[in-house]
Amino acid sequence: MTNTTTASGEEGVAMDVENNTVRRPWAPYVEATLGFRNHWYPAFFSNQLEEGACRGETLLGERVLFKRVEGRVYAIEDRCIHRGVALSVRPECHTKNTISCWYHGFTYDVRDGKLVAIITDPESTLVGKRNLKNYVVEEHKNMVFIFIGDGAPTPLALDLQPGFLDADLAIYPNGENEVVNSNWRLAAENGVDASHIYIHRNSALVNVAKRPVSLASYFLSREGMVHDKDGHPKGVVKGAGQRIQVWETEIEGVKVSSQYRPAPDAPPGKGTDTSLWLPCGLKVDPFPRPDLIQFEWYVPRDEGSHHYIVTWGKRTTDKSEIKQFNYEMDAIWKDLVVNKFNNEDVLAREAMESFYADEDGWNQEQLFRPDMIIGEWRRLASKHGRAIQRKRPTRLTAKARD
Amino acid sequence: MTNTTTASGEEGVAMDVENNTVRRPWAPYVEATLGFRNHWYPAFFSNQLEEGACRGETLLGERVLFKRVEGRVYAIEDRCIHRGVALSVRPECHTKNTISCWYHGFTYDVRDGKLVAIITDPESTLVGKRNLKNYVVEEHKNMVFIFIGDGAPTPLALDLQPGFLDADLAIYPNGENEVVNSNWRLAAENGVDASHIYIHRNSALVNVAKRPVSLASYFLSREGMVHDKDGHPKGVVKGAGQRIQVWETEIEGVKVSSQYRPAPDAPPGKGTDTSLWLPCGLKVDPFPRPDLIQFEWYVPRDEGSHHYIVTWGKRTTDKSEIKQFNYEMDAIWKDLVVNKFNNEDVLAREAMESFYADEDGWNQEQLFRPDMIIGEWRRLASKHGRAIQRKRPTRLTAKARD
Amino acid sequence: MTNTTTASGEEGVAMDVENNTVRRPWAPYVEATLGFRNHWYPAFFSNQLEEGACRGETLLGERVLFKRVEGRVYAIEDRCIHRGVALSVRPECHTKNTISCWYHGFTYDVRDGKLVAIITDPESTLVGKRNLKNYVVEEHKNMVFIFIGDGAPTPLALDLQPGFLDADLAIYPNGENEVVNSNWRLAAENGVDASHIYIHRNSALVNVAKRPVSLASYFLSREGMVHDKDGHPKGVVKGAGQRIQVWETEIEGVKVSSQYRPAPDAPPGKGTDTSLWLPCGLKVDPFPRPDLIQFEWYVPRDEGSHHYIVTWGKRTTDKSEIKQFNYEMDAIWKDLVVNKFNNEDVLAREAMESFYADEDGWNQEQLFRPDMIIGEWRRLASKHGRAIQRKRPTRLTAKARD
Repeated sequence: MTNTTTASGEEGVAMDVENNTVRRPWAPYVEATLGFRNHWYPAFFSNQLEEGACRGETLLGERVLFKRVEGRVYAIEDRCIHRGVALSVRPECHTKNTISCWYHGFTYDVRDGKLVAIITDPESTLVGKRNLKNYVVEEHKNMVFIFIGDGAPTPLALDLQPGFLDADLAIYPNGENEVVNSNWRLAAENGVDASHIYIHRNSALVNVAKRPVSLASYFLSREGMVHDKDGHPKGVVKGAGQRIQVWETEIEGVKVSSQYRPAPDAPPGKGTDTSLWLPCGLKVDPFPRPDLIQFEWYVPRDEGSHHYIVTWGKRTTDKSEIKQFNYEMDAIWKDLVVNKFNNEDVLAREAMESFYADEDGWNQEQLFRPDMIIGEWRRLASKHGRAIQRKRPTRLTAKARD
Repeated sequence: MTNTTTASGEEGVAMDVENNTVRRPWAPYVEATLGFRNHWYPAFFSNQLEEGACRGETLLGERVLFKRVEGRVYAIEDRCIHRGVALSVRPECHTKNTISCWYHGFTYDVRDGKLVAIITDPESTLVGKRNLKNYVVEEHKNMVFIFIGDGAPTPLALDLQPGFLDADLAIYPNGENEVVNSNWRLAAENGVDASHIYIHRNSALVNVAKRPVSLASYFLSREGMVHDKDGHPKGVVKGAGQRIQVWETEIEGVKVSSQYRPAPDAPPGKGTDTSLWLPCGLKVDPFPRPDLIQFEWYVPRDEGSHHYIVTWGKRTTDKSEIKQFNYEMDAIWKDLVVNKFNNEDVLAREAMESFYADEDGWNQEQLFRPDMIIGEWRRLASKHGRAIQRKRPTRLTAKARD
Repeated sequence: MTNTTTASGEEGVAMDVENNTVRRPWAPYVEATLGFRNHWYPAFFSNQLEEGACRGETLLGERVLFKRVEGRVYAIEDRCIHRGVALSVRPECHTKNTISCWYHGFTYDVRDGKLVAIITDPESTLVGKRNLKNYVVEEHKNMVFIFIGDGAPTPLALDLQPGFLDADLAIYPNGENEVVNSNWRLAAENGVDASHIYIHRNSALVNVAKRPVSLASYFLSREGMVHDKDGHPKGVVKGAGQRIQVWETEIEGVKVSSQYRPAPDAPPGKGTDTSLWLPCGLKVDPFPRPDLIQFEWYVPRDEGSHHYIVTWGKRTTDKSEIKQFNYEMDAIWKDLVVNKFNNEDVLAREAMESFYADEDGWNQEQLFRPDMIIGEWRRLASKHGRAIQRKRPTRLTAKARD
C-alpha cells in the first residue's frame, strides 16, 4: 500500500467528509451509475447453469447470454444482430457450440460470438462476417465470472477480494443471488459502512447468538485504509490506529445501548474486518462465525437495480469438512444471514434510492466521521475504476460488428 | 370585499371564460402544479396520530414526519440529512422528544429539527450544528394543520374556510382522508364547479332523500363572488343577483330533467352555498343536511395526486348533541356522502388528469358560463397564492442545514 | 406496376439491405411511430358495437368515440371540449343521435361532432358553435373502418388489401381483435417477413396438418414486388423469378430441417402469397386452408402498442356455405390460428420492441437478403404514406374547434 502525493495534494490526506462545502474528489464515481467497465464481475453460481443450458442476464446495462458447453461457460451478447431480440427469450440450440435465434435462425457460436449459420438463408454473405460481442468468462470456486469491457481482460485476481481464490478456501456453492432495487453504489457503500451495523442490532442473528455487536466501530485514521498497490486488488479496509467502538450513547438523558456487550473479563476480540474491493466486492472476515468469511457483490444491473450475490468461505481442503460446511450453510446459516440480517441492508439500500436518483443525493448528502471509509472508497474507485460504463451498449455492439 | 381596479383594468370585470382567444389572467395558477407555498394545510385528523406515534406524509412534494409529544404535534423533514432515507420507514424513538434515524442513529429533536445526537458517533461535531427543516403545526377542531413555507407563518385563520374555527362549531373527528390520483387543482375546481352537480343527479344520496337537486345552479354576475379583503380568508363564493337554476333541458326534442324537483308550493329554499378558499379548502353550507356543513381539502401531494380530506361541522356546544352528531356521521352520513356521492367527484378528477397533465389541457380546455367562478378562483389564487411551490425541496433543505 | 426512376436513381433498384453503411431510403417511415395519417383503418368488428351502443378506442394516438345509430356507425373525438374527459368513461345517451358528457352534460351529435346542447346551461352561446372532431366511418364486410386524417377521405378501397371488398368474398365476422405491446411497424414487418415462418415450424397448426412448411421462402428479385400503380392500393408482394425455398440447413454438421416436407412426387404447389398494404394490412392467400384467405391489420394505437385485428375470407355467395364457413372458423380455425400460430408472431413483435424503442434499433439492425421485401415496404410506405401522424392531436383538435 502506497500513499503517494499528487499535485493536488489530495492523496494521503484523510478527507473531512463532513465538510460539504469542499468539492469532494469523487466526480467520476458519481458518474458511474452503471458501474465501471473493464472489470470482472460475478454473474451467478456455477450450479445455476447446467451443461448445455442457457441463461440471460443484464449486467452493467448489457444483455448477456451464457451457455455451458462441455463444462465451460461462454458468454455472448443476448441480442440478435438482425432485429435485436434476446436469444434467451427462447433459447434454441441445434448444436453443442451454438445458439440459434428463435426468430429467423441466425446462429452464433457461443465460443466467440461468430455468426456461423443462418438457418433461413444458408448462403447469406453475412455468415462468417458478422458477430455478436463475446465476453471472456472464467469459473472458479463454484462461481462464474465475466469480464465486462473491451480488449484483453485484466487478471481476474485483481478484481476479487483478496484470498477468495486461495486454494484452501472452500466456497459455498448455494449462495444468494437476487435483484435488489437500488443503484449498486448504495449497496457497496452500505456494505463497508462503518456505522451501519446499528440497523442490525436487533437482528435475529444477533439475538440467537447473544452476540456482542457494537453500535458502530471504525477508525479515524486513513493509515492502512486504502489499498492501491500496483498489481494487487484495489480496496478499502478498516484503517489503523485506535478503533472507536461505540457501545452506548445518551439522548436526553436516556441511554441507548447495544443489546449484548462483551463480558468485562473477555479478552479483546480480533473483531470483524469489513473491506470493499473494486469493482464491487465485499469481504467480511470473519462472519457470521469465527471460521467463516462472508463475500458479497453488488453487480450493477441497470441504473436502479443490482444483483446482490452473497456467499461464504471456509478454510479447509478436507472433503468431509467441506461437506459439513455446505450442510451447515444450507441448514442454518444461509437463511439466518440472508433473511434475518442482510434483509436490513436491502431495506436500507432501497430506502436511499429515491434520494440519490431523484433528489440530488450525491450533492445533498451529509457524511460524517465514520463515513471516512466511504469517502476513501469513492476516491479510490474514481481513480482505479478502469472506465465508466456508459448507457449506450448499442454503439459498442455496432463496433463489434464491423 | 373590495373590487379594486388594477392598471390592467381586469379587476372587477367578470371574465368571458368562454372566449379562449383572450389570454386568461391565471398564469401563476397554471404553474402551481405542486400548490402554493407559505400557506397552511390540513395534514390529517387528530386521532390518526396517537401520543408518541410518528407518521410520514408527502405534502406539496415535501416529505414530512409528524410526531405527537405530550399531546402536541411536531413536524420535521422526513429525510435524514445523512443519506436521505425517510425516518418514517421505521420510526425509532429512544426518547420522548426525538426520533432517531433507523439507519445510523442520527437523532433529531422533533420540536425544532435539531440534530441532538448521533448514536453511532456520539462525539460528532455535527451534533448541534445541523438540523432538518422543521415545520410549524397547529391542531384545532380534531385536525392537524401544517404551515408549508419559509419564515414565520401567517395566521392559520387566513387559510381556512370562514367559520371553521368558530367556537360553536363541532367538527366530526373521523372524516375521510384518502389519496386521489389527480392534480389538486382539478379537485379544487371540481369542488366549486357550479354545474358539476350534474354528475350527482343519480347518486344514492339523492335517491335516498328524494332530494331536489337541479342540473346546475349558478350566478352570472361577479358581484359578491370574489372575497379578497385584507386580513380575511381569500375565496370565491356563489356570486349574487339572480341565481340560474336549470331543472330541465331539451335535446332533440327529448327532455332531460332532474330526478326530483321542488314541490310547486315549496317555499324557495335558501339553497346550498359552495365556496372555495385559499389554499385549497371547500365549504358546502349546508350539506348533506340543513344542519350540517361539509368541509373538504385538496392538499397537493405530488404533481399527480392530492390528499382528499373531508369532514363535517355542526353548530352546537352541547356535549350530548356533539355525541349524537358524531354517532350519526359514523353510522349514516359519512358512508353515504363519501362512497355514494363524492365517489363521483373522484371519478371526474381522475378522468381529467391526462388531459391536463399530458394533452395541454390548460390551453385546450373550453370553459363555459357556469365556470365563471372557476375563472375567478384561478385569478384569485394567482394573485393571493403567496408563492408557487417549486419541485426542488432539496435546495430548501440544503439551505435549512446551513 | 410501374418502376419509375427518380432523380436519385433509387427506384427500380433492389436495395442491398445487408449493407448497413448505405443510408437506407426510409427515413419518413422511421418517423411514423404513430402511423400514417390520412388513411383508412379498421377499428373493430361490426358485432362489437350494437345499435345505440358506444365504444371508445385509441387509434394513432387519437381518442375516438364510436356510436351506432339506426345501423350506421359514427365516430367523434372521445374528449369533451370542456375539460377533456373521455365521453366513453360513462357513455350517456339521452337521445338517439347524441352523446352527452357524463360530467357537465355537454351534448354532441355523433353524426357531425357538433355541440347541440349543454344540459347544465341550455342557453350557452357555445351551443351550435363548437364541435368535436368528427371522423368519416364506413362499414363493410362485418367490419368498421375509420378515416384518420383531415379533409375529404380518400376512397377506402385504396387502403385495403386487394380483393377484400370483392362481392363474392365472405368475411368471417368474429375475428380476433386484441392489443399487442409493440409498435405497429414491427408487427407489419413481421407479417410480411419472408423468413419469419421459421418461428412457426413447430406450431400446432403445422403439426395437426402435418403441413409442409419450409424454413424460409422468398425471392431475390425486386421485379413484381412493389405495387405502386396510381389509383390502386400500394403494397409489396412476394416478388418474381425463382423462389428460394429453404428446407434444410447444416450447422456444425448437424442438419436442421423442416418437420414436414413435400412428398417427392408432389406437384409443385402454388404456394402461399403474403402481401402487405398501406396503411397496415396483410393478406395471406391462401391460409390456413387452400380455400381461405387470412387478413390481418396492425393498427397503431400509441407508440408502444397496436390493435392486432385478424379475420378470414372465403369466396362464396351461397348463404349456406357462408354459414358453414363461419361455423368452421368458430369451431376450429380461429383458435388454431390465433392461439397456436399467431401467438408466435405476437411473441416476436413484443420481443423486438425494446430494441427499436430504446436501443436505436432502426440504425442498429442488420437486415439480410430475405428482408428485401421489408426494405421495399419501408421505401413504399415512406413514399406513399400520405402524412406522418404526429404526437399532438390536441392542436388538430383545437383547429377543428375554430
